[in-house]
Amino acid sequence: MSIDPHSFKEIDPGKRILMGPGPSNVPPRVLQAMAAPCIGHLDPEFLTYMNEAQQLLRYCFQTRNPFTLPVSGTGSAGMETSLVNFVEPGDNVLVCVNGVFGLRMCDLTLRLGGNLIQVKAEWGRAIDPEAVRRAVKGRDLKLLAVVHAETSTGACTTLEDLADIAHEAGALFLVDMVTSFAGMDVAVDRTGIDIAFSGTQKCLSCPPGLSPVTFGSRAMEVLQNRKTKVPSWYLDMNMVGKYWGAHRKYHHTAAVNMIYALRESLRIVAEEGLEKRWERHFLNHRALVAGLEAMGLSMVVPERERLPMLNTVWIPEGADDAFTRRHLLQAYAIEIGAGLGDLAGRVWRVGLMGHTAQPRNVLLFLSALEATLRKQNIELRSGGMEAAAAVYEDAW
Amino acid sequence: MSIDPHSFKEIDPGKRILMGPGPSNVPPRVLQAMAAPCIGHLDPEFLTYMNEAQQLLRYCFQTRNPFTLPVSGTGSAGMETSLVNFVEPGDNVLVCVNGVFGLRMCDLTLRLGGNLIQVKAEWGRAIDPEAVRRAVKGRDLKLLAVVHAETSTGACTTLEDLADIAHEAGALFLVDMVTSFAGMDVAVDRTGIDIAFSGTQKCLSCPPGLSPVTFGSRAMEVLQNRKTKVPSWYLDMNMVGKYWGAHRKYHHTAAVNMIYALRESLRIVAEEGLEKRWERHFLNHRALVAGLEAMGLSMVVPERERLPMLNTVWIPEGADDAFTRRHLLQAYAIEIGAGLGDLAGRVWRVGLMGHTAQPRNVLLFLSALEATLRKQNIELRSGGMEAAAAVYEDAW
Repeated sequence: MSIDPHSFKEIDPGKRILMGPGPSNVPPRVLQAMAAPCIGHLDPEFLTYMNEAQQLLRYCFQTRNPFTLPVSGTGSAGMETSLVNFVEPGDNVLVCVNGVFGLRMCDLTLRLGGNLIQVKAEWGRAIDPEAVRRAVKGRDLKLLAVVHAETSTGACTTLEDLADIAHEAGALFLVDMVTSFAGMDVAVDRTGIDIAFSGTQKCLSCPPGLSPVTFGSRAMEVLQNRKTKVPSWYLDMNMVGKYWGAHRKYHHTAAVNMIYALRESLRIVAEEGLEKRWERHFLNHRALVAGLEAMGLSMVVPERERLPMLNTVWIPEGADDAFTRRHLLQAYAIEIGAGLGDLAGRVWRVGLMGHTAQPRNVLLFLSALEATLRKQNIELRSGGMEAAAAVYEDAW
Repeated sequence: MSIDPHSFKEIDPGKRILMGPGPSNVPPRVLQAMAAPCIGHLDPEFLTYMNEAQQLLRYCFQTRNPFTLPVSGTGSAGMETSLVNFVEPGDNVLVCVNGVFGLRMCDLTLRLGGNLIQVKAEWGRAIDPEAVRRAVKGRDLKLLAVVHAETSTGACTTLEDLADIAHEAGALFLVDMVTSFAGMDVAVDRTGIDIAFSGTQKCLSCPPGLSPVTFGSRAMEVLQNRKTKVPSWYLDMNMVGKYWGAHRKYHHTAAVNMIYALRESLRIVAEEGLEKRWERHFLNHRALVAGLEAMGLSMVVPERERLPMLNTVWIPEGADDAFTRRHLLQAYAIEIGAGLGDLAGRVWRVGLMGHTAQPRNVLLFLSALEATLRKQNIELRSGGMEAAAAVYEDAW
């Protein structure tokens, strides 16, 4: 077999404005850190970087959990890690479902032989804690799982009541923080979250490839007292924890350069400060919504259940979904997300995550969207950009 | 909770010479490609890079298998992928064991509920096909698994006879190519390998984080006719294949920048040419062995079973294992590997993988090792470097 090496050009991806559901725009500092020379996964210098990444992750998770580390896979690997280490065949697992990622946890629970109990909410709405309370009543529950920030719909579920319900039932409380991590206030210890996972390519603005997870003491106890072996070797946190812990026992080769990138993205979060970062996300979200609504478009999620970093907007009547997204990408280098599942073809998902959450991107997007819709003869009100700019000017 | 961002310095790892069991030294071109701007995992430009990476992977695997892609995890995730998609509870699985990575496949087989049959060889030796033939006799076998290049010992097992034995028994033939991939001739199609996996941080000289896999038509048929769902969601290749195939159906977010790096490392392989690359690995291996033996040190593996890219040498009497490795790292910036399992404390593992396999590294290492051992009053013969240099001069 032969191949012509010259048929493969030097890599040169466009500089997109990533306003989809992730990845978000990666700051140059993170790209540069990632390109530092690769060293060994047991090199003393690398072990220092690992420790520092863990310290910084604890800061972002707002936790003192010793077991806090990045799993060597994307956010979905973090989800699998969070279930495969705790769910044994026959365990009762309650999963809250209001979008794609809740469904994914259901799928996983069944693959692991768990007894699945679902509590559903309409797509685009938060989970109702009272519905969960009713479903839990009288059951011996092992785990209660919820998606804090449903990336498929833009809905945010409040966690405090659900934590109480889980603990009253003697269950572990598992939270998918993929999209909210480092973009809004989710405090693992204060809220009583036992198991949380995230991804790097959302509000951290690091390339995709790692999944930060944190397990509290209740979760660690359950893990250590399993009746059966974890059915995954790669994601067995008993073993992975011995590499990230004091033992430094080789398990698998860490994704060295990705960990450089993660550490740098976390350093940037620490320099900005969590609170300021949450405020920045919220401000840009308010400006975006003000602009969209001023143009006459409607948000999918009711105001008090909206995520700041993932905004779903109904596609106006007469607009061509695929054309609009393609034109935004080709003409303005702006990527936005399509609808998923029940919402496919009906909504756009506009991400304002991490480094992307900047006024320049919001204003440009509003302007580009307006032009793209007018090209399709969609009737819009004018004044979108002005409404957004007014939100910024009020805040400054 | 608060954190002092200034307590975390800018990343600045040393420039090591990576002569351990992987990662190997990553060429600047690969680091630079990895630092290109992150774009969306469904961006048309990214989809082109994915296609190209797949074409280049097929070239390196020497296969026409449509199902050839990088799994979003390290080599161990590739191993798990190669088993979790095919082994169902109760299946007979024969694993050849002559080191750590064979043992890992045994562990995984048991976690998946497979009936494990082991054929063992002494650590440091190849697997004897006749022992496998005897073990297979009269059995209904689902899968026969072998490590081509045992990274823990440096032994290379010949694959042709094992492929025949597997197929005569109606079993799939699975090969761990993590360390040999792109460093020596392993031809998936010609040999009749049904399932193979590799890693990026060995002879490809790409940072760790992805695991190239390839499945042939027999394997795909078995996958499609499973009785049970794959017990992993993240590594379910029915679904992952739909993202990498014509459907482009979202499964999980691809590790975008790692795929840039992989593509660039494969482009470098194609430019050098596989045959030349194998020759380069073999030449540097011969020079290294000539140098070590001239100094009076002994190789662990018999000559005709040796891997070119992973060289195990007995630690001479009186030498301090930990001191030697630490001194090589601190004084010469050379990383070598410690022994694992049965060989811990008794051998060193010297990698000559990908970009690391260069005369300058071999000669420097021989010189540094000689000095480090003399410092410990180990008696050595002189002439190691000269013997190595003679091998090069003969070849040029």
